[in-house]
Amino acid sequence: MKVLVVGANGQIGKQLVDLLNESTEHEARAMLRKAEQTAEFEDKGVETVIASLEGTVEDIASAAKGCDAIVFAAGSGGHTGLDKTLLVDLDGAVKTIEAAEQAGIDRFIMVSALQANNRENWAEVIKPYYVAKHYADRALLQSGLNYTIIRPGGLLNDPGTGKIEIAENIKTGSIPRIDVAKTIFACLNEKNTFKKAFDLISGDNNIAEAIKRI
Amino acid sequence: MKVLVVGANGQIGKQLVDLLNESTEHEARAMLRKAEQTAEFEDKGVETVIASLEGTVEDIASAAKGCDAIVFAAGSGGHTGLDKTLLVDLDGAVKTIEAAEQAGIDRFIMVSALQANNRENWAEVIKPYYVAKHYADRALLQSGLNYTIIRPGGLLNDPGTGKIEIAENIKTGSIPRIDVAKTIFACLNEKNTFKKAFDLISGDNNIAEAIKRI
Repeated sequence: MKVLVVGANGQIGKQLVDLLNESTEHEARAMLRKAEQTAEFEDKGVETVIASLEGTVEDIASAAKGCDAIVFAAGSGGHTGLDKTLLVDLDGAVKTIEAAEQAGIDRFIMVSALQANNRENWAEVIKPYYVAKHYADRALLQSGLNYTIIRPGGLLNDPGTGKIEIAENIKTGSIPRIDVAKTIFACLNEKNTFKKAFDLISGDNNIAEAIKRI
Repeated sequence: MKVLVVGANGQIGKQLVDLLNESTEHEARAMLRKAEQTAEFEDKGVETVIASLEGTVEDIASAAKGCDAIVFAAGSGGHTGLDKTLLVDLDGAVKTIEAAEQAGIDRFIMVSALQANNRENWAEVIKPYYVAKHYADRALLQSGLNYTIIRPGGLLNDPGTGKIEIAENIKTGSIPRIDVAKTIFACLNEKNTFKKAFDLISGDNNIAEAIKRI
């Protein structure tokens, strides 16, 4: 599969691009916002494309053309304001979903957030962020795409363990970013994750086994 | 009809409550956030109920119980941050839609914003607000409710003219708040506005005639 990684310059995105790039099964196209971000990827032999989530659906569809899957791993990040939460995490995500439909790309993996589906479990301080993630996920659920919505717990930069827990409803937990990237990679072709949404934290199960038992 | 006015203490909401209260055809229940807001309404003989859009769907459904219609005229307002845009204008609106479904109230009128349906026409400075209104409107379109989505232009405190222009796509314009309130009132029982969404600005047509020609 050729996979468009949206948010390729992000912390999960970069690790996912590397996994795709090192595999024989898949290849990555890194979607980047700025031309100065491309060199780092092209030096590794990764295909890049410039497009902004604040641009049009057509821009993103054009960036995605020819890919077999899209992974939305972008996030406005903690250093920007809530304007970007609305424009990127919500509207940017939905524009990417619409771009997938427009470009005829059926497979779509969304990196969401633990419990984004359960309003009652949103921590007060990051509630506005959760609102954005929640409605982006809803748009994907209502699309005709073959989605997987992965809702990881608190993201860590710790080394990966390769061991995870997956369930429809996990109240709390955390996970290294590399294990999120590995889970996304493993989901791409795993039919058992098609049209599924689940919480993800570190756990006791091998990734390949865990996603076969969802 | 008994009409739950959500955002009854707002500038459009207050005028709508007065119109309902003065009519023989309808009556208002004013949904308010704070107990100290009730006296002003009760002095006029208006029924009040306390509920917050940041509360649960059940809270809002309970506030709506026994009403025949809901008008969402709430807005976080320009003096609050984008956290409230996400929590009130988007999530609060969608919770109200879900509350209508839960309480079995079929008729729902949304006060949206001119061109909220057209991303390409969102003014840069208020784009984040438009994102919130856009996704609230989408949720209503996707609900099973008998909706009317009214998208007024720039809101003025000028005296009303009682003359409006309505169309699916009006690029720019403004309208006094009282004329928005009168249009909402006129739409309540007007079958021609059921399951419709339209832009609204000041114009040359009587309200009653304009909404019959949508």
